[in-house]
Amino acid sequence: MRSVSIIGHGCTEFGEHWCKSFRQLIAEAGIEAIMRAGIEGKDIQALYGGSMASGRFIGQEHIGALIADQLGLNPIAATRVENACASGGAALRSGYLAVKSGEYDIVAVGGVEKMTDVGTEQAAIALGGAGDQETELFHGATFPALYALMARTHMEKFGTTEEQLAQVAVKNHKNAALNPKAQFQREITVDTVMKSGYISTPLKLLDCSPITDGAAALILCETEKAKEICENPIEIIASEQASDTLSLAGRKKLYETAAAKTAAESAFKKTGLKPGDVDFAEVHDCFTIAEILAIEALGFCPQGQGGKFTEQGKTALNGEMPVNPSGGLKGKGHPVGATGIAQAIEACLQLQGKAEKRQVKGAKLGLTHNVGGSGATCILHMYKALEGKK
Amino acid sequence: MRSVSIIGHGCTEFGEHWCKSFRQLIAEAGIEAIMRAGIEGKDIQALYGGSMASGRFIGQEHIGALIADQLGLNPIAATRVENACASGGAALRSGYLAVKSGEYDIVAVGGVEKMTDVGTEQAAIALGGAGDQETELFHGATFPALYALMARTHMEKFGTTEEQLAQVAVKNHKNAALNPKAQFQREITVDTVMKSGYISTPLKLLDCSPITDGAAALILCETEKAKEICENPIEIIASEQASDTLSLAGRKKLYETAAAKTAAESAFKKTGLKPGDVDFAEVHDCFTIAEILAIEALGFCPQGQGGKFTEQGKTALNGEMPVNPSGGLKGKGHPVGATGIAQAIEACLQLQGKAEKRQVKGAKLGLTHNVGGSGATCILHMYKALEGKK
Repeated sequence: MRSVSIIGHGCTEFGEHWCKSFRQLIAEAGIEAIMRAGIEGKDIQALYGGSMASGRFIGQEHIGALIADQLGLNPIAATRVENACASGGAALRSGYLAVKSGEYDIVAVGGVEKMTDVGTEQAAIALGGAGDQETELFHGATFPALYALMARTHMEKFGTTEEQLAQVAVKNHKNAALNPKAQFQREITVDTVMKSGYISTPLKLLDCSPITDGAAALILCETEKAKEICENPIEIIASEQASDTLSLAGRKKLYETAAAKTAAESAFKKTGLKPGDVDFAEVHDCFTIAEILAIEALGFCPQGQGGKFTEQGKTALNGEMPVNPSGGLKGKGHPVGATGIAQAIEACLQLQGKAEKRQVKGAKLGLTHNVGGSGATCILHMYKALEGKK
Repeated sequence: MRSVSIIGHGCTEFGEHWCKSFRQLIAEAGIEAIMRAGIEGKDIQALYGGSMASGRFIGQEHIGALIADQLGLNPIAATRVENACASGGAALRSGYLAVKSGEYDIVAVGGVEKMTDVGTEQAAIALGGAGDQETELFHGATFPALYALMARTHMEKFGTTEEQLAQVAVKNHKNAALNPKAQFQREITVDTVMKSGYISTPLKLLDCSPITDGAAALILCETEKAKEICENPIEIIASEQASDTLSLAGRKKLYETAAAKTAAESAFKKTGLKPGDVDFAEVHDCFTIAEILAIEALGFCPQGQGGKFTEQGKTALNGEMPVNPSGGLKGKGHPVGATGIAQAIEACLQLQGKAEKRQVKGAKLGLTHNVGGSGATCILHMYKALEGKK
């Protein structure tokens, strides 16, 4: 069975890019990834681009072809994959399977979203397409409302508090302050979060990830070849994906995310590893409650204990299980299609010891957890560093 | 290297489905495919769904998760792939690579589009997202205009006539009249086409494929296993994909489709076959000129001779190289995301000898050609029938 490794990565700054277009963003990330991999464009045999709602954000579909064109990569095969906010993770997994199939040796995968070309209301409606249009969005339930339902259920069942949710945001802003690509490079306090306005009770403004423009790209390579051409390849040791009902109405329990549990259990079973072996994780904290649900589903703490685990500082950069060292979606920003790729980039930087001020000490095994919608898709990857060419 | 075969297929009628929703259409096609394959839903390990512009047609993204949910297939991995009008072909190729990778043995692939929930102007704008928003659609160039430019160039360079274009429509309607799933089950004449109104000179109304609702699905299976569980598996003997510039402005020549040529050359090289070995082809005739460009790019006739080749009846059902026995996009209809899958279904029916009144005699090798945009993506598959279980 062929193995797949990452040999290069590139990422724009995440934020409000008033002067850069969708295509400029992905070109910037793509070119950086190609240069960092030390290859040339002509070495790339195929590409997969993740973008959630380019049709509604910028009036453009056919994103795969656009990226190939923009990067001068014609006539390679170029395809867009979409799994809502897990579109980046889906692009990574598609590229992974394409290399694993033997069809290609070197594949580029990327993610991009330009969200600020439309107003906030339009953005909320476009993002609502990640949920169930017929049973949720049509009736006015945008994403803060859906996650608020999950938060409320978790609070009632396990006693999780609004202050514990706030701690997730505080921790992720603290990490983002150390990340030069992050949208919010400043710390906040629990008090600031608690005093921010309610968006959908119990979630407040500072419980929510922002609207962000950005792009991220990776170069994937078959592992034996990767070791020949790259000094520090990052091997993808697990790639798992699972689904759940599109609508919250279809779920038996709103206080857990079944797709994430399924994906994690499968990844740990196949690799023979356990949650305690993971040195850090980038998880999909589109709302603070989402990080609590994630760390429970991934087995980093017992079910219902995510709030307490966070409050005790265990997910901090120097905690026993650092979560979202990059700042996460909350602090780093959330250009939806790019997020899953950006998570993988943080994994590379941490495992290569290049995460500078936010470096997790002794990081040897990383995990990324990318979610679509209110949990209908979960895509999970695990990574370790390899010795490459000297 | 693992091989991949089709063991089941399902397709809705193509047309204007005022009483069926997007999710009802894909459920109908999916369930038919599962039943025809003689498997159960729980045997399916992953799915790929092609849909071009569901965000703009029905306000819904996250189509992979929607399909898995609708078909009761949770928690399997479910992903949407998008390559504009080649989204169906892209879903097929994604499933093909996923099985080839060894990750899965049985995968469902499908395509669906519900286009009539919006008005014609909105549909034209949504479809325009397959081209280049910045250099084409924004300036008013919708798809008839882009293909009209290609038609005009072909006419000027090779002397192709409007009557020859009309012959494509006449032939495809004739075939569609024999296809109980087709949108237009009636014949037309060259005179009718010539007298239909100009949409974008030289293309007239009856040179254009229609706005269509529909869905189609396939069950893919690793070939050795397919032979055990299926009486008449159809092996995918080639799967190729290539890209070209997104915008016509980037192309050196408008009278040929480079991505299709690249994909075809690669398919023939890898299989050791030649165009003359193909017994029939389903090609992407979104406009009549597109079929002319396709049969030239695929090598069925010399460059520039596509019009004459058609006029001489060589692409007719009883011709030397039957093209679009199903009726093609022009006669069968073009629910964009579903088209690439529907083409593969026609290939299955022909190779299994089940195409009834439109059966191509002695069909042993089939080819499908699915195009995104004005040719920025081309996805090509070739198929042959296998002996399965008795």
